[in-house]
Amino acid sequence: MQHRGVSRLFIGPGSNLFYLTGIRAIISERIYLFQLPATGKASLLLPTFERLGAEDSGIEAEIIEWSDATGPAAATKAFVADTSSGTVAVDDQLWSAFLLDLQALALKATWSKASVIMQQLRSRKSEAEINLMKEAAAIADKTFSELTQQKFAGRKESEIAAEIQRLLLVHGQEQMQFGIVGSGPNGAKPHHEAGDRVIQPGDSIVLDFGGTYKGYQSDMTRMVVVKGGSLDSEYERVHEIVNEANAAAHAAVKVGAACEDIDRAARKVIADAGYGDYFTHRTGHGIGIDVHEHPYIRQGNQEALDEGMAFSIEPGVYLPGRFGVRIEDIAICRSHGSENINLTPHSVTFVQ
Amino acid sequence: MQHRGVSRLFIGPGSNLFYLTGIRAIISERIYLFQLPATGKASLLLPTFERLGAEDSGIEAEIIEWSDATGPAAATKAFVADTSSGTVAVDDQLWSAFLLDLQALALKATWSKASVIMQQLRSRKSEAEINLMKEAAAIADKTFSELTQQKFAGRKESEIAAEIQRLLLVHGQEQMQFGIVGSGPNGAKPHHEAGDRVIQPGDSIVLDFGGTYKGYQSDMTRMVVVKGGSLDSEYERVHEIVNEANAAAHAAVKVGAACEDIDRAARKVIADAGYGDYFTHRTGHGIGIDVHEHPYIRQGNQEALDEGMAFSIEPGVYLPGRFGVRIEDIAICRSHGSENINLTPHSVTFVQ
Repeated sequence: MQHRGVSRLFIGPGSNLFYLTGIRAIISERIYLFQLPATGKASLLLPTFERLGAEDSGIEAEIIEWSDATGPAAATKAFVADTSSGTVAVDDQLWSAFLLDLQALALKATWSKASVIMQQLRSRKSEAEINLMKEAAAIADKTFSELTQQKFAGRKESEIAAEIQRLLLVHGQEQMQFGIVGSGPNGAKPHHEAGDRVIQPGDSIVLDFGGTYKGYQSDMTRMVVVKGGSLDSEYERVHEIVNEANAAAHAAVKVGAACEDIDRAARKVIADAGYGDYFTHRTGHGIGIDVHEHPYIRQGNQEALDEGMAFSIEPGVYLPGRFGVRIEDIAICRSHGSENINLTPHSVTFVQ
Repeated sequence: MQHRGVSRLFIGPGSNLFYLTGIRAIISERIYLFQLPATGKASLLLPTFERLGAEDSGIEAEIIEWSDATGPAAATKAFVADTSSGTVAVDDQLWSAFLLDLQALALKATWSKASVIMQQLRSRKSEAEINLMKEAAAIADKTFSELTQQKFAGRKESEIAAEIQRLLLVHGQEQMQFGIVGSGPNGAKPHHEAGDRVIQPGDSIVLDFGGTYKGYQSDMTRMVVVKGGSLDSEYERVHEIVNEANAAAHAAVKVGAACEDIDRAARKVIADAGYGDYFTHRTGHGIGIDVHEHPYIRQGNQEALDEGMAFSIEPGVYLPGRFGVRIEDIAICRSHGSENINLTPHSVTFVQ
């Protein structure tokens, strides 16, 4: 913080608070802040009923609490009493209403984003964090394996999504974060979730799902094809190209490579095959406590990869009105290159 | 907006955007803003892949899009070009990182909370909104009824929570938002969620759950008791008192009553019975597109109730280490008083 000229951090409930303290607090309209000065003692502003949860974390911090009966105004004022000036870095995801309150109470402070500090810390995972992500990924692998034993034809996308959720929870995840089931032409919309469309023989289906295990996320995309109908004649070729793009991105991962280099490696394969216009998003995003975090694997991002960085590699080709193909793994940047923590094969899985 | 001296609104993805435009956009690190000036045309800043979803809503707005390839900087600058000065009201839940970007681009503007505009609009529900909330509540009633046919003893709290989730989805909700299963002594922690504790005969259990139906939330708490063990001897008395407090709060609901009056009505019953120190939270919160929104039913809130306001009434008594009791309905403020949209009886439901 001193190196970056930051005099104090204000962190709200959410992933940064969990990373720094282990506390899982509710994100709500009740103000809750963790204050970490560059020198001196940390403090916590919280609603009374969150006190026990904070103390359970073993945190050493002065606690300033407020209750529904008194309201937060006086406690908040006391909490920021030392913030007369200096540069305050505030949690990127803190609600603006709270930042506006803080700004009104500390008029001489300069405000910046906590990501200037947190990004560097959080993007490099410890082995303990990587192990949790591997356990999360193993649950996704199991879920995919059991799901694809089931019958798909005749079921709605939303039913498949509900089944993914059930399996993730059965195998130990705490929560599904997202469950994309893009069947047939819906697969051509990268952010389609899961709808009422009834799955048909011959459909290709984008299955992209993830959830939380002990605070860490999984995120994997695989393709399934429903037997018995007529698959789009271009499907196999596109699948092969996307798979090659995925492999090229993995191969480009090394300490010191720029994020944009990984993106370029995947994009080149797809462009060379003539599908460049149909790969409409970045190649990947960092992942950890948040599903999306630094580093972002996109054009123009010159940030260098470092050991322990964890990010998705998820090239895709989307042919509007017909189908989409996306193949996504989570890669860990190691001294020897990419470690893929998703063990499900990349090939098409055929289902009933 | 003119009456309140607000020259423009900046709204991010989330409940305010859904309320104003019908658009359900993803809350993420990709900047997405809806700008509504007090006079003149609305505009939208969004990542390219969100364009289709925005257009589907039928919104009339200038669209400024940006892609992962170009990044958002130039588009964001163009988007705020007219925001040279004046008071800008910004979505309370917009991430601070985006507010800081906006503040850096519009240095002469004054920033305030969009709730100064949105609160008044959103807290008074239309009949169409109330009907959606009633459908959400009916799904919660069905879920409770089917759940309590099942065996509880020997199952973990988390298994019951998973079953609540399954039933909410089976009956048509889109998502469970929360599922509190506080068995035995865990019921004495108001914000306990659902853990590994195995439910025992004689346990009382706080079941507090809710989810989303067509964008609107349900939220209901009922008590169940597991047959066959020895229930705490004070349980029945406390249940009766909490139920009376709930009824007193409903009875106090009328157009023009202050929010704190409703809180006081519930609190008085509990205090008069000698349990005042064990009712540790506010009596309720507004509900609609968000689970928690205005009006808040708490001490010190002198805001007057108006027709169509929707809020929870959820008094509770928590005896640490022993048990808790909470009974929660959603009340609609009508010209004739409170309309309770949760039809499940308040009495204890005995389960196996």
